[in-house]
Amino acid sequence: MSTSPPSAAPPDPVTPDRTLEHPPTEDIRLAEVLHALSDPMRLTVVRRLAGERGEMSCSDVPLPVSKSTSTHHFRVLREAGVISQVYRGTSKMNTLRSADLERLFPGLLDRVLAAADAQAERLGQG
Amino acid sequence: MSTSPPSAAPPDPVTPDRTLEHPPTEDIRLAEVLHALSDPMRLTVVRRLAGERGEMSCSDVPLPVSKSTSTHHFRVLREAGVISQVYRGTSKMNTLRSADLERLFPGLLDRVLAAADAQAERLGQG
Repeated sequence: MSTSPPSAAPPDPVTPDRTLEHPPTEDIRLAEVLHALSDPMRLTVVRRLAGERGEMSCSDVPLPVSKSTSTHHFRVLREAGVISQVYRGTSKMNTLRSADLERLFPGLLDRVLAAADAQAERLGQG
Repeated sequence: MSTSPPSAAPPDPVTPDRTLEHPPTEDIRLAEVLHALSDPMRLTVVRRLAGERGEMSCSDVPLPVSKSTSTHHFRVLREAGVISQVYRGTSKMNTLRSADLERLFPGLLDRVLAAADAQAERLGQG
């Protein structure tokens, strides 16, 4: 019996019926963004994503918590409008919504990232 | 019978045995500051205090919540290191710890306040 080899499949398409909900830019609220950023694990995620050009899978950002807790943290960031998440195959790929945040709250994300860097340096957790 | 007139009493002394606990500057943590700022009522308090030169009593910053909820919000801000509170007579007087925050996280508070102003303007809640 002849089957197509796996390599013939289109590479990692975005699966339309598994689209994750994101707030449109105009619905992003400062309090929710600050809440999303107010957790050391979520700050770790945001710092890692900020250091990347492209998208990262959740497993590219290992956290010292269970998988379900990690998934929760990514979801809080997405629902607040801090990151976007898209399925590619079985992986969720993440990017910072830097441009959207910059448009709404100029300079805020940069200052938070600088503050996180400064604190990590100060506490020797760089 | 002769008593001292009330005006002879020292004005509003800080009552030493009612001192409220504050984190020393080096114990202030970014995640806790962001958490303290991640509530619309607490952002309202911080915006009002930022617009004042001196200290303000809690009742100078009326919030559309119960007194106990208001007290809670001020306490969260104090315990995170965002404001200092001192008793004068029966009032708690509040000031922003702008200098401490600026030393730890340069520019952060300014960006949060600018973001809060921009959002209030955008949503017509200026």
